[in-house]
Amino acid sequence: MKAVIVTIGDEILTGHIVDTNAAWLAARLSEIGFEVIKKISIGDDREAIMATLKEMTGVTSLVLITGGLGPTPDDVTRKALFDFFESTPVEDPAVLRQVQSFMEKRGRPLTDLNRKQALVAHNCKVIPNNIGTAPGMWFEKRGTIFVAMPGVPFEMQEMFNSYLQGMLKEHFALPSFIVRQVLLTGIGESFLAEEIKQWEKNLPPSIHLSYLPSPGMITLRLTARDENRDALEQEVESQLRKLQTLIPSYIYGYDNDTLEAVVGRMLWEHGKTLSLAESCTGGAIGRMIVNVPGASRYFKGGVIAYSNEIKINVLGVPESVLGNFGAVSRETVCAMAEGVRKLFDTDYAVAVSGIAGPEGGTEEKPVGTVWIAVTSKEETTAEKFSFGDDDRQRNITKSAIAALNLLRKSIQII
Amino acid sequence: MKAVIVTIGDEILTGHIVDTNAAWLAARLSEIGFEVIKKISIGDDREAIMATLKEMTGVTSLVLITGGLGPTPDDVTRKALFDFFESTPVEDPAVLRQVQSFMEKRGRPLTDLNRKQALVAHNCKVIPNNIGTAPGMWFEKRGTIFVAMPGVPFEMQEMFNSYLQGMLKEHFALPSFIVRQVLLTGIGESFLAEEIKQWEKNLPPSIHLSYLPSPGMITLRLTARDENRDALEQEVESQLRKLQTLIPSYIYGYDNDTLEAVVGRMLWEHGKTLSLAESCTGGAIGRMIVNVPGASRYFKGGVIAYSNEIKINVLGVPESVLGNFGAVSRETVCAMAEGVRKLFDTDYAVAVSGIAGPEGGTEEKPVGTVWIAVTSKEETTAEKFSFGDDDRQRNITKSAIAALNLLRKSIQII
Repeated sequence: MKAVIVTIGDEILTGHIVDTNAAWLAARLSEIGFEVIKKISIGDDREAIMATLKEMTGVTSLVLITGGLGPTPDDVTRKALFDFFESTPVEDPAVLRQVQSFMEKRGRPLTDLNRKQALVAHNCKVIPNNIGTAPGMWFEKRGTIFVAMPGVPFEMQEMFNSYLQGMLKEHFALPSFIVRQVLLTGIGESFLAEEIKQWEKNLPPSIHLSYLPSPGMITLRLTARDENRDALEQEVESQLRKLQTLIPSYIYGYDNDTLEAVVGRMLWEHGKTLSLAESCTGGAIGRMIVNVPGASRYFKGGVIAYSNEIKINVLGVPESVLGNFGAVSRETVCAMAEGVRKLFDTDYAVAVSGIAGPEGGTEEKPVGTVWIAVTSKEETTAEKFSFGDDDRQRNITKSAIAALNLLRKSIQII
Repeated sequence: MKAVIVTIGDEILTGHIVDTNAAWLAARLSEIGFEVIKKISIGDDREAIMATLKEMTGVTSLVLITGGLGPTPDDVTRKALFDFFESTPVEDPAVLRQVQSFMEKRGRPLTDLNRKQALVAHNCKVIPNNIGTAPGMWFEKRGTIFVAMPGVPFEMQEMFNSYLQGMLKEHFALPSFIVRQVLLTGIGESFLAEEIKQWEKNLPPSIHLSYLPSPGMITLRLTARDENRDALEQEVESQLRKLQTLIPSYIYGYDNDTLEAVVGRMLWEHGKTLSLAESCTGGAIGRMIVNVPGASRYFKGGVIAYSNEIKINVLGVPESVLGNFGAVSRETVCAMAEGVRKLFDTDYAVAVSGIAGPEGGTEEKPVGTVWIAVTSKEETTAEKFSFGDDDRQRNITKSAIAALNLLRKSIQII
C-alpha cells in the first residue's frame, strides 16, 4: 500500500513554518502499514494543486492532502478539489450544526464565511471535524483514494485519530503491525546507543528500532511486522523486558505516557502533595504538571522566585546563603525547596536554579549549569546538571524535565 | 525565479525526523528573491531520484537537493546524480585535503570510504564543505541549475551561507522582495477576515496576503514582489498603516516580535516590575515571560496558586470571596492579583483563574471559562474569556496569551 502526502500552503513554501503535518502523517501511516513514497508541498495555487492531483491519480493507493480548506480567500484547495473531482457543493446539515455550535460556544456570530464551511462535495464522504469548522473530504478516482484534511495541526490530528485511521483500516487490507515506545530521560543518544548495542544487534529482523530524540528525552520506537501476531507480541514483550533490565533507571514510561503523568500518578497513589520553587525555569515545571487533568489532587502550586529578593522574602532563603554560595548553588536550591515545602505545607517540594543563558555564564558556572533539589519530610537531596547548551529555551526545557525526573526517582525509593 | 527543494532520505518518509532542511532552505531562498514553488521528499531510491530530476529539468530555474551524499551504501543520491548528468568521477585535490584534515583532527584513519568523498563529477562546480566530508555539487542542464548538498543540517547551512548564497546571487538576476508579518491576538480567523475584507480586496497585485493561525494568535503575512524596490517598500508601509487603523487593538507586533518580548520591552521602558498569580495556567505565563533573555530586569516572579488553600494562605484571598463567588470569578482573580502585587512588591500584577478542562465545567461556567485580572498601583481591571475549547492544553495556552495581551493593553494606556 503506497501513500503520498501533499501539504498545501504558501507558508510552507516560504519556510515560515516547518511542515510538521507531513512528518506526523508519515509516522502514523507507516505505523498502520502504508509505505510513504513521496511527500510534496505546494502553495495555495490552483494550477499546482490540480497538476499534483492529476499526477497521483491511479499511481498510488492513497493521497493525503492537508491545508487550504479554511474559509478565507487564500484557501484555494477546496475550490481546486471541487473542480478536479467535478463536484457540486451541497450544504451538509451535520457540518453546519458543528460550525454553528463552534461559533456559539465562542459567543461569536455565524458569518457567511463560516456558513460556507458546510458546503461539501456531493461525491465525497464527509469526515467530521470535532474541534474546528472545516470538515475533511474523502474522494476516489481511478483506484486512488484522496483525503483532504485541514492544515491546522491539532484539527488534522484529531480527525486522523478519531475517524480517518479507522476508515483507512476498513478500506485497505493492511498488514499486522505492532508499535511500542520506550520513553527515556537522563541519558544522551550516543551513550544510550553504546549501552544497548548488543541488545539492538540481537533484535530479530521482524522488529525495527528507531531513536527519536527530543530536548532532554529519547524515545525508542520498536516497529514489528509479522504474519503471526501472537508470536510477534510475545517477542516484542520479551525484548522490552530485556531492555528494562539493561537500562532500568532511564526508563520513565512506555507508549503514550508522559513524564508529568507518570510523576502525577506516583504522587496520587502514595497520597502525597507537591509544591515547586522555580527560578530559571520561570514556571516551566508547573506548566508541565498541569498538563495532566486532575493535577489538583496532588499539586498545590509553587513560587516562581525569579529575583533573589523573592527567594529571600517569600521563600526564606537566608541572605548569607545567597551571598556566600550564589543563586546557582546546592545551598540555595536546598533552601528554596525547604522554604516552599514549609510555606505550601506539602509532602514534597522541588526547586530549580540555574543559568539558562545566553548571558550570565561564568568560567566556574557556564550557561547550562543548573542545580535541582528535591525535599520531603525525611530528607533533602540536590544534584548539579551541566546541559552544555547555548540555547535558552532548550536549557529551560531540559531543566524542567530533569527536575521532574529527580522527583520521580525520589518517590520511587519509598 | 522559481525554485524547487528536493530532500532525500528514507527517514523523512517514515516520519522519524521532521524535515527542517526544507523549511530552512525555503526561508533562505524566499529571502533572496526566489519563489519556491514546490518541495518534494523522496526516499533513498535511485528510480525516484532520477524521475524527480528529469521532471524538474527545464521547468524551474533552480533545484536544491539535500541528503544522500554520504559514503555509505544507503546514500544513493550521488550515484543517481552521476548517472543523470552523465558524469565521470574525478578526484578533487582540495576536497581530498579537506577530508584528510577532517579525519586527522578527530584522530581517525583515512578509510577508502572517506577517500571516495573526494570523487566529484567532472562536469560540476564543487562547493566546499568546511565542517564535514561530503562536498556540494552544482550542475546545469537545459537551463536548470541543480545543486546537491549534504543532508546534515549544520553542514548544509554552513555551505549555503558561506558559498551557495553568493553563487546564486551571482548567477541569477534576483528580483526585489519584501516580507512583512503583522502579529495579532484576541481575534478569530474568520472574524478577522470579515474585518479586513475591503482592505484585502484593494491590495495591489504585487502584494500577496496569507493568514497563519496558531492557538490564540494569527499572523498576517504580506509578501511583495516588484521591480521597483523603493516604490514597493512605500506601498507595503502604506498598506500596513491602513491595516493598523482598521484593527489597532489586535495588533501586538510585527515581523519577529513575540508577545512576551513586546510586553517585556514595555515594562522595561516604563521602568515597571511584574508579578503573577497563576491558577489554571500553572506557570504558563511565567514560562512565556522567561523566554525573553534579560527578563529579570522587570520580572520578579509569581505564585502558582493551584489550590484554593494557597489562594487563601499565600495570596490572602478572603475565604468568603472564594465561598461566595467561586475560584473562577472576577472577585477571586482581582484578589489574587492584588495579593501577589503586595507580596512581591511590584508595579503590575496579573492573575488568572479558569477551567482548563476537560472536567470541572458547569452550565454556568463551562470548560474554557477564564477570568483574568491586571492590577497596578492605580487600578484593578478584570475580564472574562470564553475560549469554548475542549482541549486542556489549548485553553492553558490561550489563557496565558490573553493574560499577556491584557497586561499589554493596560501598560499601553499609561
